[in-house]
Amino acid sequence: MYLLYKEYNDIFIKRIQQICNRRCEPEQFTILVREIPFCNEHKIRGCNVDHFFSKHHPYSYQSFEILYDGKHLDKLLCQAKSLTKKIEDLRHLSSLKKHSRYDAKIEQLEDMLQTLGREIRRVQCRMTIEQKELPVAFVTFSSRWGTVLAAQSQQHTNPLLWITEMAPEPRDVIWQNLAIQYRHLPLYRIVILVAASLLTIFFVLPVTAVQGIAKYERLKKWFPPAMAVDLIPGLRSIVTGYLPSAILNGFIYIVPFAMIGLARLAGYISRSKKDLNACNMVFYFLVGNVFFLSLLSGSLLDQIGESFSHPKDIPNRLASAVSAQADFFVTYILTNGLAGFSLEILQPGLLLWDTLKSYTWDRGKKKCPYVYSLPYYRIVPFVALCMLIGIVYAVVSPLILPFLVGYFLLGYAVFINQIEDVYITTYETCGLYWPYIHHYIIVAIILMQVTMIGLFGLKAKPSASFSVIPLMVITILFNEYCKIRFLPTFNQVSVQDAKNNDDLDKKDRLEEENVRKALDAYSPPCLRPLDLGMEGTSSTKPFLSPT
Amino acid sequence: MYLLYKEYNDIFIKRIQQICNRRCEPEQFTILVREIPFCNEHKIRGCNVDHFFSKHHPYSYQSFEILYDGKHLDKLLCQAKSLTKKIEDLRHLSSLKKHSRYDAKIEQLEDMLQTLGREIRRVQCRMTIEQKELPVAFVTFSSRWGTVLAAQSQQHTNPLLWITEMAPEPRDVIWQNLAIQYRHLPLYRIVILVAASLLTIFFVLPVTAVQGIAKYERLKKWFPPAMAVDLIPGLRSIVTGYLPSAILNGFIYIVPFAMIGLARLAGYISRSKKDLNACNMVFYFLVGNVFFLSLLSGSLLDQIGESFSHPKDIPNRLASAVSAQADFFVTYILTNGLAGFSLEILQPGLLLWDTLKSYTWDRGKKKCPYVYSLPYYRIVPFVALCMLIGIVYAVVSPLILPFLVGYFLLGYAVFINQIEDVYITTYETCGLYWPYIHHYIIVAIILMQVTMIGLFGLKAKPSASFSVIPLMVITILFNEYCKIRFLPTFNQVSVQDAKNNDDLDKKDRLEEENVRKALDAYSPPCLRPLDLGMEGTSSTKPFLSPT
Repeated sequence: MYLLYKEYNDIFIKRIQQICNRRCEPEQFTILVREIPFCNEHKIRGCNVDHFFSKHHPYSYQSFEILYDGKHLDKLLCQAKSLTKKIEDLRHLSSLKKHSRYDAKIEQLEDMLQTLGREIRRVQCRMTIEQKELPVAFVTFSSRWGTVLAAQSQQHTNPLLWITEMAPEPRDVIWQNLAIQYRHLPLYRIVILVAASLLTIFFVLPVTAVQGIAKYERLKKWFPPAMAVDLIPGLRSIVTGYLPSAILNGFIYIVPFAMIGLARLAGYISRSKKDLNACNMVFYFLVGNVFFLSLLSGSLLDQIGESFSHPKDIPNRLASAVSAQADFFVTYILTNGLAGFSLEILQPGLLLWDTLKSYTWDRGKKKCPYVYSLPYYRIVPFVALCMLIGIVYAVVSPLILPFLVGYFLLGYAVFINQIEDVYITTYETCGLYWPYIHHYIIVAIILMQVTMIGLFGLKAKPSASFSVIPLMVITILFNEYCKIRFLPTFNQVSVQDAKNNDDLDKKDRLEEENVRKALDAYSPPCLRPLDLGMEGTSSTKPFLSPT
Repeated sequence: MYLLYKEYNDIFIKRIQQICNRRCEPEQFTILVREIPFCNEHKIRGCNVDHFFSKHHPYSYQSFEILYDGKHLDKLLCQAKSLTKKIEDLRHLSSLKKHSRYDAKIEQLEDMLQTLGREIRRVQCRMTIEQKELPVAFVTFSSRWGTVLAAQSQQHTNPLLWITEMAPEPRDVIWQNLAIQYRHLPLYRIVILVAASLLTIFFVLPVTAVQGIAKYERLKKWFPPAMAVDLIPGLRSIVTGYLPSAILNGFIYIVPFAMIGLARLAGYISRSKKDLNACNMVFYFLVGNVFFLSLLSGSLLDQIGESFSHPKDIPNRLASAVSAQADFFVTYILTNGLAGFSLEILQPGLLLWDTLKSYTWDRGKKKCPYVYSLPYYRIVPFVALCMLIGIVYAVVSPLILPFLVGYFLLGYAVFINQIEDVYITTYETCGLYWPYIHHYIIVAIILMQVTMIGLFGLKAKPSASFSVIPLMVITILFNEYCKIRFLPTFNQVSVQDAKNNDDLDKKDRLEEENVRKALDAYSPPCLRPLDLGMEGTSSTKPFLSPT
């Protein structure tokens, strides 16, 4: 716990430092305001924002950028993009084949593009668009001090109007989700939570079903060519031993993508929050389906049902299951470590996907290589799971620890390389992942302590069993302390830090430049001046900017 | 739920109105700052407060009032007070008996008082006292707008320094508790919570023990004069039937005072918060010891133990117990209503206490009649308990409802009278009790729904039983909605309201007067100019101000 505290403190200090270093970023001057009511006089929201903030934050309010429902525009822009692509392709062809029969077609398409461009500009024109205001705006302030105060205070008597929060980075914003009504968001969250819970709970059914089919005897019946395996001696045992676990791992490999898909539907306004949410869901999925599922072999649902009706027996049950499965987890960490990290380096999924794409629907097209951002939601939960296995087994069978140390050393080397040379940063959270990892470690420690209670119970040492309970209480209190000591600064910026950074700006004469930057940064993509080469807002970035 | 929502909304609007009406109160311009660090240069905290707030809240910061450790001063003031009293008593005697032998004594005492007064003024002198600064200060702002922003934002990178909150009313402050270190407060709270839980859980033991002794046969053995009861026919059955329940009610009558005593030790900085906390503890105590204890007759602890190990059976168990005890609760509401309200009007406890006091240690002294404030912590939980009984029994035996309606009508008449003519207001919470009462009602509804699940289960209607579960989910969601819709405005003032009230002040030219008032309001009692007639900070007030 001392180490945990120290680590939290270090990351805390690094976060403050990083925020100070990123002084020129526009998100430090901008808040996101939601649920803006209509102005009674003009029946539009825009002037209301101006009135409200110039009245209630007179010393620092600068300007605002209200958002518009851009669905129609997005469609037009999409059309325009596909037209440009078609024209480019045709030009490419005509330059290759030196043939003039494409020229007429190109001209016709270019005409269409011109018309479309005029239409887009017409729609972009404020007068037309003001009818489709969303109740969402980015409000820019002239100082970080004012931004922080406005973001942290309750603006309106009705706490469900004029809801303010710090704006995410411009590249981090998911513009489509800003169009979702704020009052519907809890519904989205509940639906996604239920979906993720159902996936976690019922994931076991298809897996065991497929594993059942994949048994050699049945396989022979369903897929006769499999008999060929019999021809090579020894191969059969490898196949029967390996196939079920390969299928399980295959299913588990898909889960992070399913979870990020779910998180995408949950209506988060920034990519970082979406990834954090997916990360959480994948972690609990892994704890449920890898850790507990491996422990509870046999008639699973019966056992879970019994656990619910006899909660007192859970520690004993857990302890006996944990001590029985030590070997399995050593193998799991070894194979997963070696296989997982080599997969991470080789990126076979992406390679396969790219090859497939280039030989099917992208055939003959110019390749545009992309670099991806680090998929935290896929990597963090697996590492956290290994940590959990290590912490739980540290008391039951400490032999697992050397393997874990090897795993973490290898992982360190691999990820340092990947982060430095392979992935790019598409958003900056300033260490916001740490509180989540801290939470996972606390979950692991609590689980270890429950196992210890059961273990001492099994060994008929009730006094030792009872003396673990104060340890659990201390763990929970420690977690609460960390929450009140560090978490507020991870969720909001303090007035002092904001003022200090303002003063540093004043010293470097950067104030006006920063505010000007912030004013330009938050224009929604559909209102930006028409540039048909742009690539939209995906989490991938062109490896080399297109020439 | 519609009615609950409407009521919450009404009280919400009344609260806003009341805050607007109380525009001249100093607490709207003041925040309480805790955990002020030392200034590095001067090694005192006072100048640090000034630096910090004039730097970070430059547009509205006005002044500050740091607190001092006044234990020594309090002692001196106490001595001075007792001396003044002695002198007064002697003067009274000498004027009665026209005797001069008291004059020398009076002169001597007055000399002592003079010396003491000089000593007090010397200690009060800033130079001496600055060594004993507490890390607590009241900071006054020139506008409500600045106050609200400062109270709601995180001031320092370390969220455990410069903790700000809105100041309580000056008359509501408990000055002694401000000397408790902020970091020790969670410990205080935990200890008090544990103590209250233990009291709630083990309260049953002494009660049943005393009830056991109070049975007539044993009573005869322990207290032979009780045999006199046998002489009057019929009296015996009344005594044996009535005594145990009288003892139970006697014990329960003491509980609110025990709980307010516990809350007093919990270190709350204002009387209103202390009372709210006591109110909560008493409510849960009553739910545990009146509602559940009456249901679970027989070997109580065994039953509770079984409930914990078979949580699925709780609804059934509850339902059968609830339907068996309907008659008991009708009697409970009738007797408690009639007895409780007549006791409330007659105030026998206070009468007895006053009589006792005036005949023992206050004998011969001049009487100073006091009026008390409404003891919410004693009244609200009992009313909430009756509400809970009514809601739970509305489905099981609706016959209880007419009695409840009678109870509430009587209660309404009694309390309107008491509030208007008997009690005085010693603090103003602007409706802060409502969220708690709302919570109690939600607890009652959930309990009713659990009972319904069990009841349908007993009647072998599993489909009806299952269909109650969505109702429970809806209740919980409704509660969550009320929390986000109303609760923030009960805990903090919005920027808009603050600004509107500021503007109203400006119109009435009250600004400067209000700020001046706020500057004077928060001087700690030990630093006020020596006035030996003052009555300290109790929750009672002199009925007539002393002439």
